[in-house]
Amino acid sequence: MSLPFAQRLSNVETSAIRELFKLLGKPGIISFAGGFPDSALFDVPGLRQAVDQALDQEPGAALQYGATEGHGPLRTELARFMQSKGVDCAPEGLIVTTGSQQALDLLAKVMIDPGDKVIVEGPTFLATIQCFRLYGANVISAPIDGEGVQVDRLEQLITEHRPKMVYLIPSFGNPSGAMLGLERRKKVLELAVRHQVLVVEDDPYGDLYFGDAPPPSLLALSSQVPGSRDWLAYCGSLSKVLSPGLRVGWLAAPAELLARATMCKQFSDAHTSTFAQATAARYLQAGRMPETLAQVRRVYAERAQAMGAALRRELGDAVSFTQPQGGLFFWARLTGAGGKTRDAGAFARRAIDEGVAFVPGAPFFAQNPDTSAFRLSFATADVGKIEEGVQRLARALG
Amino acid sequence: MSLPFAQRLSNVETSAIRELFKLLGKPGIISFAGGFPDSALFDVPGLRQAVDQALDQEPGAALQYGATEGHGPLRTELARFMQSKGVDCAPEGLIVTTGSQQALDLLAKVMIDPGDKVIVEGPTFLATIQCFRLYGANVISAPIDGEGVQVDRLEQLITEHRPKMVYLIPSFGNPSGAMLGLERRKKVLELAVRHQVLVVEDDPYGDLYFGDAPPPSLLALSSQVPGSRDWLAYCGSLSKVLSPGLRVGWLAAPAELLARATMCKQFSDAHTSTFAQATAARYLQAGRMPETLAQVRRVYAERAQAMGAALRRELGDAVSFTQPQGGLFFWARLTGAGGKTRDAGAFARRAIDEGVAFVPGAPFFAQNPDTSAFRLSFATADVGKIEEGVQRLARALG
Repeated sequence: MSLPFAQRLSNVETSAIRELFKLLGKPGIISFAGGFPDSALFDVPGLRQAVDQALDQEPGAALQYGATEGHGPLRTELARFMQSKGVDCAPEGLIVTTGSQQALDLLAKVMIDPGDKVIVEGPTFLATIQCFRLYGANVISAPIDGEGVQVDRLEQLITEHRPKMVYLIPSFGNPSGAMLGLERRKKVLELAVRHQVLVVEDDPYGDLYFGDAPPPSLLALSSQVPGSRDWLAYCGSLSKVLSPGLRVGWLAAPAELLARATMCKQFSDAHTSTFAQATAARYLQAGRMPETLAQVRRVYAERAQAMGAALRRELGDAVSFTQPQGGLFFWARLTGAGGKTRDAGAFARRAIDEGVAFVPGAPFFAQNPDTSAFRLSFATADVGKIEEGVQRLARALG
Repeated sequence: MSLPFAQRLSNVETSAIRELFKLLGKPGIISFAGGFPDSALFDVPGLRQAVDQALDQEPGAALQYGATEGHGPLRTELARFMQSKGVDCAPEGLIVTTGSQQALDLLAKVMIDPGDKVIVEGPTFLATIQCFRLYGANVISAPIDGEGVQVDRLEQLITEHRPKMVYLIPSFGNPSGAMLGLERRKKVLELAVRHQVLVVEDDPYGDLYFGDAPPPSLLALSSQVPGSRDWLAYCGSLSKVLSPGLRVGWLAAPAELLARATMCKQFSDAHTSTFAQATAARYLQAGRMPETLAQVRRVYAERAQAMGAALRRELGDAVSFTQPQGGLFFWARLTGAGGKTRDAGAFARRAIDEGVAFVPGAPFFAQNPDTSAFRLSFATADVGKIEEGVQRLARALG
């Protein structure tokens, strides 16, 4: 007899992407499939200094149980980091989470009853869709273009579905790489107030810009749209700019929501590793972040440039894409030009045979998948590997 | 207008204990209230060496995203640690969790539909009750005595309620300090098979024994009770013996359950901090655990001895208790002898006025609270403070 598992598990299936990842062990493969930063860019000396200081100066705090809300000095540093980007945020206005994935889980736990609707971008971060579905959410897709979510269409969907939440990655979305324009950002905040709907801003990539900084975050802009702060939750992360292994993210939200998320967190994991939190706090205190960010931006900008040029050179009009201005991803579509395939799944399988991996786009859609779309990460391969990998893509496309 | 929070939040209330903890900042107070180990016993040099090695030898693995199931070398070490205690467990038979609290959360997420029943000990760990209730569980209490849960009564309750799970802390329970006897352990496993009900063994304290080791864990004993391993989940933790701040726990369970818990974990926090996991793995590899455990056992044994003697000397027949043979806690009852109060809540408030804090027992009961019971932790005060604190208890009792 099998164990009597909960109904909620029937809302999610094992992802097609996970199956694909099993193929990545093949020797010599060039991977554009990952969603992670380049380990070679981690500031190991800076983190070593930070953990040394934490264990020297506050071993008790770094190794003992801590407050569910987060390690005080880290909350102070994260509030400062947000302030440096135009956000009016006190340390008490955020809680530390075990990566921003946990912030999403807590938001779902606090907000979603089975059958509730949530609007996300189509496409969006796959683990968000699955996370929300595990709480019984009915996930609705709002269409995007090169400037991010189409706000007129978003408003229609809000009116039609009365969702509990609207989840957006405004800056360099995963997988879209798109950047929501300033005017659209303000309109989203106005929608939140007008329709009294919680907007969740997920912002792991906003610091990874290549030229000019993106427009201010929704959270920063909320000071310009009266009442919007009451309908806005912000998820931040150190994973893409410092280290995913620390699992340090944060959630800024209205006080009544933050209190409930804290209660749920207490019974989810008590608190985020104080060992990691104290290390992150010391790192931020040491003032190394600006230099780290500058280095990461420079390297990713170069790789994005190389990938864009290679795609145009090797694949020509068989693919279309918007050159990303930040983040980790190209989002491209097979056009079918020259009679080549428009099936990104088939393309992905042939690419593996040619020794290059990427992720087809369909699983990133909660509804109406675009089977011609695919995602390429330029973060972890160097320029030489990127050029070789794109040549393999061209061979796979035939 | 308020945010439309999920219904599940109405199943839990802010705990009375949290309110009490706010009073602990009072200067000069001696606290027997905490549920945490003594920071002074943390092996800081050993952990520093471990993190140094991890950052030297595998900085990528220690700082990058990792497998949801856990860091491979840590799973190997944890399996070895369990094997050393008589458990037949391969590294693939467990996943690493963000403290054992997360193992409980994942078990609830995988198993509990709203309205499902779960049987726990009365009293039991408060955060388990709340965690399960957040998933809509109807939590039923099974009575305990000095030898742990009363298995005959447990079987009646299983028959009556057909629960999804039975949750037990067999060794030195929180708050009871009780140790489930060997015969009862075997009977619990037989009940699991006979009634096809999942038994969850939470074992954060089993290594903290003062004299002889406790009987083997349910997981170790499952090899003697055919079929029982299929109905058994085990939650382990490094928090009480090494450091809570690492947030490293683990879940061993049948493969079909473990796979589903892993999927839920992926969308809860992606994975446990690899920074903490790599550090814990190096620590265990270095072979320092036996010495650390010996030291912790010696100190806690001395403190438990001192507290028992002081309670008998200072409070006499006004309290009754079983001297704990391990763990962190005394569980005591006000007898009312000599006309003294039997209200542990009132006693706790008067104790604060006298400069000593502890936790009244009622909140630890999912049903039928015993208002004369209270919990004293002997873990964090030294012998002098314990003796002074118990004298203050005597003054508070009048």
